[in-house]
Amino acid sequence: GDLGRGWHRDKGITERGWHRDRGSRERVAPGQGDHGVGVAPGQGDLGEGVAPGQGDHGAGVAPGQRITGGGGTGTGGDHGDAAPGEEGRPRPDPPEPPKPRSLPRTGTESAQAAQATPAPQYPRYTRAEVARHRTPADRVWVTHGTEVFDVTDFVELHPGGPDKLLLAAGGPLEPFWALYAVHSQPHVLELLRDYKVGELSPEEAAPPPGDTQDPFAGDPPRHPALRVNSLKPFNAEPPPELLTQSFLTPNELFFTRNHLPVPAVEPGSYRLRVEGPGGRSLSLSLEELRGRFPKHEVTATLQCAGNRRSEMSRVRPVKGLAWDIGAISTARWGGARLRDVLLHAGFGDHPPAEGEWHVCFEGLDVDASGTPYGASIPFHRAISAEAEVLLAYEMNGQELPRDHGFPVRVVVPGVVGARSVKWLRSVAVSPAESPSHWQQNDYKGFCPSVDWDTVDFRAAPAIQELPVQSAITEPRPGAAVPEGELTVKGYAWSGGGREVVRVDVSLDGGRTWRAAELPGQRGRGWAWALWELRAPVAAGSRLDIVCKAVDRSYNVQPDTVAPIWNLRGVLSNAWHRVPVTVTR
Amino acid sequence: GDLGRGWHRDKGITERGWHRDRGSRERVAPGQGDHGVGVAPGQGDLGEGVAPGQGDHGAGVAPGQRITGGGGTGTGGDHGDAAPGEEGRPRPDPPEPPKPRSLPRTGTESAQAAQATPAPQYPRYTRAEVARHRTPADRVWVTHGTEVFDVTDFVELHPGGPDKLLLAAGGPLEPFWALYAVHSQPHVLELLRDYKVGELSPEEAAPPPGDTQDPFAGDPPRHPALRVNSLKPFNAEPPPELLTQSFLTPNELFFTRNHLPVPAVEPGSYRLRVEGPGGRSLSLSLEELRGRFPKHEVTATLQCAGNRRSEMSRVRPVKGLAWDIGAISTARWGGARLRDVLLHAGFGDHPPAEGEWHVCFEGLDVDASGTPYGASIPFHRAISAEAEVLLAYEMNGQELPRDHGFPVRVVVPGVVGARSVKWLRSVAVSPAESPSHWQQNDYKGFCPSVDWDTVDFRAAPAIQELPVQSAITEPRPGAAVPEGELTVKGYAWSGGGREVVRVDVSLDGGRTWRAAELPGQRGRGWAWALWELRAPVAAGSRLDIVCKAVDRSYNVQPDTVAPIWNLRGVLSNAWHRVPVTVTR
Repeated sequence: GDLGRGWHRDKGITERGWHRDRGSRERVAPGQGDHGVGVAPGQGDLGEGVAPGQGDHGAGVAPGQRITGGGGTGTGGDHGDAAPGEEGRPRPDPPEPPKPRSLPRTGTESAQAAQATPAPQYPRYTRAEVARHRTPADRVWVTHGTEVFDVTDFVELHPGGPDKLLLAAGGPLEPFWALYAVHSQPHVLELLRDYKVGELSPEEAAPPPGDTQDPFAGDPPRHPALRVNSLKPFNAEPPPELLTQSFLTPNELFFTRNHLPVPAVEPGSYRLRVEGPGGRSLSLSLEELRGRFPKHEVTATLQCAGNRRSEMSRVRPVKGLAWDIGAISTARWGGARLRDVLLHAGFGDHPPAEGEWHVCFEGLDVDASGTPYGASIPFHRAISAEAEVLLAYEMNGQELPRDHGFPVRVVVPGVVGARSVKWLRSVAVSPAESPSHWQQNDYKGFCPSVDWDTVDFRAAPAIQELPVQSAITEPRPGAAVPEGELTVKGYAWSGGGREVVRVDVSLDGGRTWRAAELPGQRGRGWAWALWELRAPVAAGSRLDIVCKAVDRSYNVQPDTVAPIWNLRGVLSNAWHRVPVTVTR
Repeated sequence: GDLGRGWHRDKGITERGWHRDRGSRERVAPGQGDHGVGVAPGQGDLGEGVAPGQGDHGAGVAPGQRITGGGGTGTGGDHGDAAPGEEGRPRPDPPEPPKPRSLPRTGTESAQAAQATPAPQYPRYTRAEVARHRTPADRVWVTHGTEVFDVTDFVELHPGGPDKLLLAAGGPLEPFWALYAVHSQPHVLELLRDYKVGELSPEEAAPPPGDTQDPFAGDPPRHPALRVNSLKPFNAEPPPELLTQSFLTPNELFFTRNHLPVPAVEPGSYRLRVEGPGGRSLSLSLEELRGRFPKHEVTATLQCAGNRRSEMSRVRPVKGLAWDIGAISTARWGGARLRDVLLHAGFGDHPPAEGEWHVCFEGLDVDASGTPYGASIPFHRAISAEAEVLLAYEMNGQELPRDHGFPVRVVVPGVVGARSVKWLRSVAVSPAESPSHWQQNDYKGFCPSVDWDTVDFRAAPAIQELPVQSAITEPRPGAAVPEGELTVKGYAWSGGGREVVRVDVSLDGGRTWRAAELPGQRGRGWAWALWELRAPVAAGSRLDIVCKAVDRSYNVQPDTVAPIWNLRGVLSNAWHRVPVTVTR
């Protein structure tokens, strides 16, 4: 990722960033600065118990949530809520915050002050008060440990770009710093101290009381950067600017699509049931799954069928969560091949009898009636060595996070995320598809004329492989970009392992096109391609940026949304459009 | 197919067709009528040596061609040239033909006349003269054997529809009758006799002298219904109205895409060379290929990468043959699996070494320098049992026709036709793709901004699987259709075995859509789906009929042509549009 761009550059080269003042900070002992407030480098991913930001998309979802994590504190603010079009909404009476200094002292002054004078008395703030400071107009406040900082004047100096820093505005820095190791350098924390304006109130340390009646009370803590589309069940996506920061999506930012409460699984007593041929069945502990089958690793992108649904709802309302472009992420998955487990259970390369057979999965996540989430994939995909279907227990080298199926989930590369069943409890081979609601009566595509009065879910096949897709992650719709060289970034992916071979980008709404730069990375095509296009743009112009991808089968995306509209708002893969203006 | 619709109906039900007068014809001895002019039923496919119609599309191609077939006669007419938009072109001085009768006699009169009077003296005509009678305005003439008929007044009575009969206008009936067995009934020929107006000149029986300097002189005869895009090499497509008459395309109408002259192969001395691992190689006679390997049959659609190129050229000129929508056809292929032959040669399920490997094919068709046509497919597809790649020697239950690769061709289901190398002479496994021009510097897709000055053929992958495709075959663009119920017909197909799951049809240019009826036929998806939509239409309206297909991966076709334009005019799969008017 290029978030770190400039952080390591020589001061003679970069115009902004830490190193300009570094000479005066070298006296800070290495390692001192970043441990001083109790945050170990690399720690703080989600173990700190930072509660999810309650996004504005989660309309109708009860506010508040029991915090189940470690020693951290909850926040009731609306972090991560920077949905386009909502910027202009009036905010409730921001109190006039004290401004101890209108400009930060120079590094030298700061160092002298820190050494020469006793710690000043700072005002105390609640997290709710901090959360009101999320824009330069309101001043940009952040917390680190129990300290409060006004970083407004540093926003434009942030080496990773102002937009990235603003993602943390109004809340704690730790979850963001944990994602990007560059922040663990001593001088970063030292620089931050120059901006200190207060301390958190002592009562902010205690988590709010839990609600034992809430089936979602046991859900894990989440990263505040996630844009929440629904809190119960939890459905959230990373902000576009972070989505394409790195080829592998950090686990904390990986889009989360839960249908039900997150089950609490005790790994020692976990058993996976595999129904073998002839009524025999197998029960595998986590240790057995790890030990008996070779670990296989696959880098694969998962995408929700509803990714980009919000564009479809603008044509005509649809039923479903209002996903923006972030219901897609990529990880390196590790686990046992489903093929190996099926062979071990007694199945062969061919289905047990003639006809189409399926492998059905059930999760440990259940609804109020005890019915689990379920889905199936065709037997030939499940048994294929090339299809690389995993029973995964690792995600980006870490244990599977609770939101992503701890301790074991299915990962079906190239196929809609809905078939990659999380918290897997059973695998069964069947002559019929899964009877689950989500296999039979959801996740299917229809003609635009089909409505809820006329829909016949039997008439359409369950979505498996997804069509070719792409979207622009930078700049954001409605942005004002500076004249000069514009960089457009985005992702592209296609189902079935058909890797992306080209991405065309237009700055004039689709009249003329240029091929974007794609990473050299090719191959099986389970994973997305991150792309980039640089073009000179003139002040005063209005750009209608458009992207469309081409996959290995030379399938392309449709031009417009309306002709692919469907009542469930799935399969939204028309050209992605981002209008921007160019300023001087 | 429904060409026979009405031919077998009871006279009380059908309003038009043979059976209305049948009562008066029963006295004709069974079998007499259809043998009387020397045409055996079911015979006459191409063994009669009917020369290809020289279409108007073949601009710049030398007229005349040596006839290599049996005892038939050549024709220099322009049969099959009914391309839309060319109807209004003035034709050269049609002579005033004698019109022995302005209306046919009734069946009873005709039968009496045939028995009671000696054969009348008929005027003599050349085939060129017959060929000038191709529209009702010029009178519609056809030949059968050496007889000439004016069937103008029968056109509207034709049970298969007027458009189908007009395909034969100006030329011989036999090639068309041979395709549709319904014509082999005795009363069909009997009815035809009522319309006799002349005899062919005696000199028309002799074929024109051959040109021994012409490398294409050995090309086989072709069916006059084919729309010729290039005569040398021969490239032709069936007319849209015939394309979707039947699920399997008759061999005579199967689109033909030759890159070079058709080689003359003596089946007894034919050998297929298969280069095995470690420098060993195998030489298989046709008999060995048939005898040593199990015969495997696959119903598969082949499509040229340039199908529908003419729509792309209307955006901006491209290099390539101006294919309409007919460079696609379907057959039942029979032959040895390539997999079995490769295993026999010593290869295994995995390529000989790490990396991507390919299976390269060469044809017996060579250019002036002796360089053969060549292409390759990935090794994993060649060796896959599921991919069903064939070394085919049968097409729709018949020996492979010369134009389609006699005696052996490759058939790669789900893949662009260019890889299904005809007149196969060698198979070789290689760490690189075929070095052939057609693999390296052709049959690739590019961004619309790439032109012949900037193109880098190494930058794009060779087309293998094709994207989802569909087109409307009836009605034809610009047609005037009668008010009442309109039937729209067409085909839909996608590459890679991704069968078509839905076809959406719009009558209003894409604003509203309805799902077409698809045959129940599903499965592996190597073959197209023929679809149909019926809708009431009101007189006076103008319809902009549009179709778009959805494949099993829910890929869809792009809305418009310009954004997928490419310099070679390949991969033209935008929505197909057919404007028509509705008349009273």
